[in-house]
Amino acid sequence: MPTSSHSPGKKRSHKAGLPPGSLVHIGEQKVETARITAVNYDDQRVEERILQDAEECLAYKDRGGVTWINIDGLHQPDVLEKIGKVFGLHPLMLEDIANTEQRPKLEDYSDYLYVVVRMLYRSNDKIFAEQLSLVIGKNVLISFQERHGTEFDPIRERLRNGKGRARRLGVDFLAYQLIDAVIDNYFIVLERLSDEVETLEEQVIASPKQEALQKLHGLKKSMSFLRRSTWPLREVIAAMQRGDSPLIGEPMRVYLRDIYDHVVAVADAIDSMRDLLNGMLEIHMSNMNIRLNEVMKVLTIVTTLFIPATFIAGVYGMNFKYMPELDWPPAYPVVLVSMVAVAGAMYLYFKRKKWF
Amino acid sequence: MPTSSHSPGKKRSHKAGLPPGSLVHIGEQKVETARITAVNYDDQRVEERILQDAEECLAYKDRGGVTWINIDGLHQPDVLEKIGKVFGLHPLMLEDIANTEQRPKLEDYSDYLYVVVRMLYRSNDKIFAEQLSLVIGKNVLISFQERHGTEFDPIRERLRNGKGRARRLGVDFLAYQLIDAVIDNYFIVLERLSDEVETLEEQVIASPKQEALQKLHGLKKSMSFLRRSTWPLREVIAAMQRGDSPLIGEPMRVYLRDIYDHVVAVADAIDSMRDLLNGMLEIHMSNMNIRLNEVMKVLTIVTTLFIPATFIAGVYGMNFKYMPELDWPPAYPVVLVSMVAVAGAMYLYFKRKKWF
Amino acid sequence: MPTSSHSPGKKRSHKAGLPPGSLVHIGEQKVETARITAVNYDDQRVEERILQDAEECLAYKDRGGVTWINIDGLHQPDVLEKIGKVFGLHPLMLEDIANTEQRPKLEDYSDYLYVVVRMLYRSNDKIFAEQLSLVIGKNVLISFQERHGTEFDPIRERLRNGKGRARRLGVDFLAYQLIDAVIDNYFIVLERLSDEVETLEEQVIASPKQEALQKLHGLKKSMSFLRRSTWPLREVIAAMQRGDSPLIGEPMRVYLRDIYDHVVAVADAIDSMRDLLNGMLEIHMSNMNIRLNEVMKVLTIVTTLFIPATFIAGVYGMNFKYMPELDWPPAYPVVLVSMVAVAGAMYLYFKRKKWF
Amino acid sequence: MPTSSHSPGKKRSHKAGLPPGSLVHIGEQKVETARITAVNYDDQRVEERILQDAEECLAYKDRGGVTWINIDGLHQPDVLEKIGKVFGLHPLMLEDIANTEQRPKLEDYSDYLYVVVRMLYRSNDKIFAEQLSLVIGKNVLISFQERHGTEFDPIRERLRNGKGRARRLGVDFLAYQLIDAVIDNYFIVLERLSDEVETLEEQVIASPKQEALQKLHGLKKSMSFLRRSTWPLREVIAAMQRGDSPLIGEPMRVYLRDIYDHVVAVADAIDSMRDLLNGMLEIHMSNMNIRLNEVMKVLTIVTTLFIPATFIAGVYGMNFKYMPELDWPPAYPVVLVSMVAVAGAMYLYFKRKKWF
Amino acid sequence: MPTSSHSPGKKRSHKAGLPPGSLVHIGEQKVETARITAVNYDDQRVEERILQDAEECLAYKDRGGVTWINIDGLHQPDVLEKIGKVFGLHPLMLEDIANTEQRPKLEDYSDYLYVVVRMLYRSNDKIFAEQLSLVIGKNVLISFQERHGTEFDPIRERLRNGKGRARRLGVDFLAYQLIDAVIDNYFIVLERLSDEVETLEEQVIASPKQEALQKLHGLKKSMSFLRRSTWPLREVIAAMQRGDSPLIGEPMRVYLRDIYDHVVAVADAIDSMRDLLNGMLEIHMSNMNIRLNEVMKVLTIVTTLFIPATFIAGVYGMNFKYMPELDWPPAYPVVLVSMVAVAGAMYLYFKRKKWF
Repeated sequence: MPTSSHSPGKKRSHKAGLPPGSLVHIGEQKVETARITAVNYDDQRVEERILQDAEECLAYKDRGGVTWINIDGLHQPDVLEKIGKVFGLHPLMLEDIANTEQRPKLEDYSDYLYVVVRMLYRSNDKIFAEQLSLVIGKNVLISFQERHGTEFDPIRERLRNGKGRARRLGVDFLAYQLIDAVIDNYFIVLERLSDEVETLEEQVIASPKQEALQKLHGLKKSMSFLRRSTWPLREVIAAMQRGDSPLIGEPMRVYLRDIYDHVVAVADAIDSMRDLLNGMLEIHMSNMNIRLNEVMKVLTIVTTLFIPATFIAGVYGMNFKYMPELDWPPAYPVVLVSMVAVAGAMYLYFKRKKWF
Repeated sequence: MPTSSHSPGKKRSHKAGLPPGSLVHIGEQKVETARITAVNYDDQRVEERILQDAEECLAYKDRGGVTWINIDGLHQPDVLEKIGKVFGLHPLMLEDIANTEQRPKLEDYSDYLYVVVRMLYRSNDKIFAEQLSLVIGKNVLISFQERHGTEFDPIRERLRNGKGRARRLGVDFLAYQLIDAVIDNYFIVLERLSDEVETLEEQVIASPKQEALQKLHGLKKSMSFLRRSTWPLREVIAAMQRGDSPLIGEPMRVYLRDIYDHVVAVADAIDSMRDLLNGMLEIHMSNMNIRLNEVMKVLTIVTTLFIPATFIAGVYGMNFKYMPELDWPPAYPVVLVSMVAVAGAMYLYFKRKKWF
Repeated sequence: MPTSSHSPGKKRSHKAGLPPGSLVHIGEQKVETARITAVNYDDQRVEERILQDAEECLAYKDRGGVTWINIDGLHQPDVLEKIGKVFGLHPLMLEDIANTEQRPKLEDYSDYLYVVVRMLYRSNDKIFAEQLSLVIGKNVLISFQERHGTEFDPIRERLRNGKGRARRLGVDFLAYQLIDAVIDNYFIVLERLSDEVETLEEQVIASPKQEALQKLHGLKKSMSFLRRSTWPLREVIAAMQRGDSPLIGEPMRVYLRDIYDHVVAVADAIDSMRDLLNGMLEIHMSNMNIRLNEVMKVLTIVTTLFIPATFIAGVYGMNFKYMPELDWPPAYPVVLVSMVAVAGAMYLYFKRKKWF
Repeated sequence: MPTSSHSPGKKRSHKAGLPPGSLVHIGEQKVETARITAVNYDDQRVEERILQDAEECLAYKDRGGVTWINIDGLHQPDVLEKIGKVFGLHPLMLEDIANTEQRPKLEDYSDYLYVVVRMLYRSNDKIFAEQLSLVIGKNVLISFQERHGTEFDPIRERLRNGKGRARRLGVDFLAYQLIDAVIDNYFIVLERLSDEVETLEEQVIASPKQEALQKLHGLKKSMSFLRRSTWPLREVIAAMQRGDSPLIGEPMRVYLRDIYDHVVAVADAIDSMRDLLNGMLEIHMSNMNIRLNEVMKVLTIVTTLFIPATFIAGVYGMNFKYMPELDWPPAYPVVLVSMVAVAGAMYLYFKRKKWF
Repeated sequence: MPTSSHSPGKKRSHKAGLPPGSLVHIGEQKVETARITAVNYDDQRVEERILQDAEECLAYKDRGGVTWINIDGLHQPDVLEKIGKVFGLHPLMLEDIANTEQRPKLEDYSDYLYVVVRMLYRSNDKIFAEQLSLVIGKNVLISFQERHGTEFDPIRERLRNGKGRARRLGVDFLAYQLIDAVIDNYFIVLERLSDEVETLEEQVIASPKQEALQKLHGLKKSMSFLRRSTWPLREVIAAMQRGDSPLIGEPMRVYLRDIYDHVVAVADAIDSMRDLLNGMLEIHMSNMNIRLNEVMKVLTIVTTLFIPATFIAGVYGMNFKYMPELDWPPAYPVVLVSMVAVAGAMYLYFKRKKWF
């Protein structure tokens, strides 16, 4: 299962004590079996197949054109092992493919480039990340997904139709298209977050409730998670662009620069929203204070208006024998009036102090 | 429509699933049709025309002198496509022109430099940003604005009059003038913000109200937005100045250094104001606390002055049969005096504690 | 004894005034004697021995194959001195081995590489760190541990069984395995911390208590300690990877890149958790405020509902002779009703202000 | 007029729409006319004159020795224009001289170095900054001040007396002396600020008042302003030191390194004081809270000591016919004693809770 | 007198207006006369003398072996001037030696290296810093201290005894030893601070008092001061290590790397403690809030338990003629019971709300 934004630093420890390069799937185990599809195409033709066994890949190893092998589900170590054997992949690369907790990275194994990208989606106020591993060879691209998604369907469609540059260009363009599709998805996640932030902002300004704080906390965690997925991606794209490997052709540069821009735009929007969330926290805190102030003011007013009057009433409730006022006929109305007068004076004093 | 400072990270997602390089206008759709104007000039003459169709640009492609083609309104993809065809612009460049959510950037497509700058204006407590795309060719400059503005009228005027260096120098000087006009506008926005900040500062110090907090929040958002438009601009200008491209002549350096300075000055002023706003937030928070303190003090004083006296009155209001004081003639005035004495003692105690 | 996360900047001062290179064990003195084990192996055979005296090492100095000498316990300076003499180690290196307060570092003494790594474990809400010093020579690896741990047992086991690449590769691979085992352990510490953070988070959100703050403080200290152990490790691994020394072979690069990735993942998770802890602090603070607000509201309501009514009761408790209401038969119920009315009106006013 | 620390980001906007290089004085217009003085000296002789017209400068253009032309007051654009014409200064340089809102900077116009430094002084709790523009030529130094100051009088004096290295060395040494005089002045401003900060610190710790907060705010603004004037200066000096221009001789390096050190010392002291001010803000806030706590404690004590007693008095003030205690002779003193007992018990409870 | 951690940015201003290179002692003037000692040694012999006059140094200028001249007390400018003349030191170097407010730095005057290091000690809750200036020549080391300390006595002793590498190695090793002694002293200061921080931490957690805040503030100032003395030292050591100057021999590298490590360890511990102090501030603030909460709770409980009961008593204290309850015999106990019932109900309500 993909990592969520709510549990940093977990699950890796199961591997402690094993020799380096051990293929242990880190991530939640699922029952689904792996599904392997292979597409082989060149300018003229497209050929799609679903492979029953990982060893059938062998047929594609030296075939002409571009081959795209996609594996959904990483839960059977033997599948991974077989593919590794067929294409001669390094044990550490296989280990990283199996361990779906990698940060985005680019590793050059001279024969192959190994690229890790994280696919994001948001559900239930959390962001989930799934690892997409791309192994870019001379005329083969092997992609490993944690489970079957629909993000790459438009690319398949374009390959079938032979529209656009899709089929004319090589493995590197295919890799670019996959990464582009992943990053386009980031904008969907971002937009969703942006909507949530805006809704929360209105709520925080209008009627501050304590739930807001928890949502704020959740959104900040999501932003932090998103940021951690996006920042290393910048470096990955920049490294691909630098073109140290012959596997990425010169004409790819301009395309990679384009997705680099997209990643930067995502990073930018995240920072924007983090600022916003911090500002909202300040407003929330301040609103809480203001509410306290308001309550205190009412308390003060009630107390200060009535306590002196109550005191006066108490005085004339005393049972002393010699209290001349008690027998004075207009005393009662006079006292009532003076009570009102004291309260009124205090009220005016507060008014002048601008407490209302 | 231009992006405002109040909705980060939006609208890009509509493109997810489309092949890279698709010309979809991102931004609010408007009914206005695009308006294309062309100016061709050299040292001796100026020629201005409004083009009815994007294909008329072809006439200017290889004409002598400097040609400036300006397109207002990006809402008809076919216009953009035709211009792209005429001048042989890269599909990704056209995509970026149509997608008006770009960060400021400079991209070198060897035949052309592609520069994105953001034009800012402030209205209704928000900052709006419009994308200005400049395509700098050998002897043609194509500028794309989201809508018709008046910022470039003085430049047109200077071209017509042939005053200054305007007509003697090449495409690069024209591009410099456009960018300079955009950045001059930043100072207007800044000054407006500065006035608002100052007004708010006086208000925060004099009479703290809760509305201030929301204005503060709004201004901080604007600053953050402004900052995000300005910082990458620094790099853009610096990259132009570095002079890697033959399209920017050596004599331009000194002019570019000048606008670099302006951008840094803007960035500086923004940072200054951000500091100021943070300081104001602290003052606001503290003022709120002080108000609470003041209210509490009054509450305490009233309570502490009257409660003991009220208690004494209560005691002599009891109906016990055997209460010797009740029959003692001077009891009433003695009690009254002692009430005042208790209150007075407390009052003096508070005074000494410097609570008033 | 290992350094804990709770006492920064201690114990080094005992050395002030001594000449540079003095072998004084810094760290808690323990009674255990040092234990020296030697393993010599090549592709074909493994030979393990426990050495009684440090000088027996001499036998391994120029023997073929790979020799791994491990010393547990650093409390007898003479052992260290003898080993230093046998292998010709630099006095400053010996000083650093004895002084177990080093930061992770890599030092190139041309004949030897000296690597300091910190082994971490968590117990009693603190993180403890033990210094592991590795001296990497041409065909000998000397490792110094503060006390006997079990972290390296799997490596010993693999050497014995001759499984995997373990015995085919040289000293550098052995060093890599030791460091890898140490870093794998970091994930265990991290996971434990992560569990504690999660438990605390639930507690902070559900029922804020003051103890939470102290736990938070403790966790932040642990994070800070962990961070300080991890960050310099990045540079150490990066420096080893750069391959300036012939003692680290070219094929090691890919393995070192792998542990570099692990270290970055640890650093990442730490930063994530630090963010989380800061967010929790904010929630805690806010919850405290909310509690205060709630208490204030009850106080205000009780006071404001009863004070006016009490005042009315006080008025009719006055002993004036001429108070016409007192003799009016329905006065008592009328007054009672009006008391309830006043309280009810106030109650509704608060309700409308949304104070409940 | 010089910029003060209290209005960031202003006044530049008047230039929007004008062609680049327009000479508009930005800053407050003053009536004073410009004053031009010229000093020509070499090892043997000194010659001082006050010029009536800017064109008289022409006489100094190619004269031997070192010429220092100083212009006070920038309010007449024609003066600036004439000088520009005489010495062949670049229009953008003239624009920057007229626009007294520049950040410190160094610009290399190959024939001339253009250096902007800001002269600071503090009055009325604000820091004011005046722009000093230095144009360093082959054997001429032109300095532009906003108004006549006395900072350079000692330099003039030393030139007249021929003391020290002053007259032996060239234009670069003169420039160094001017900058050194400006930076020496920074220490005076710093010391003044330091005194104010110390006074405020004592006040904040001893008796927290709200005015302190405003002073704190003012000082923080001043620090922020000072910082912004000092930081770019570092780069300016470092750039001069790097010695890319032949106008700054090799022997100057050691002198420039010296003022570089001074600037760093200023920057350091500013950071120190900023830390201090932030610490003071925390203390102020905390003191405010403590005061609130203290007030609350008194309120609580008074209320809790008297409310139960008042309640008891109320009970025995009820007018029930059948209240046996009322007729019990010792009831009154017994009740009084029990009232005191209740209050005393509460008092002790609070004492044990350490509330006093 | 040494600078303390409590007065940033002072005293430098006395020099404003003087020509560069003027020898004015900045720092507190003291009556002590300067004390000059000279040690000359090589592998075979040591010779120590106390010089009566600065000019006697001349004798050591070209003598063989290594000469170490140490000057305590900088208050007589003539001593400094004479030494400057004897060894041909640059006036700016002499100025920096006299001005004891330098930051740590390394300056290369080709014939000499000039190194400034700050010696620290802590007394009376402040950190004091004294300037140690080292002038490293070909075979002479001149050290200037503000006053006579004992830090270098062990070095002298080692020279006398000829133990260790002390006498075999050159001037650079002597300089290294002096700097090492200074930095060893930092650990003593650190340890002392660490103890104070720990004591304060316990106090803050156990019983929060306001004095704690001031101590915290003091410690933060000390940390800040320490940090400013340590950070530039890193660069100094790194610059010495880089070995651009022939005055620092290649074999020194490993020693300099060692003190570099120490400086980094100090910087690290400082950062650790700063984090700790910030955490403690948060705890302190929160504890203050909790105390307020506790007080409020008591206030609320007392008020809410008694006010309704007092109100009931007030009702039956009214003097209406027609109040049927008054004549009902069991009324009194019924009312008492109902009072207790109301109070009890409220008490239970609060209990359920978990306010106790």
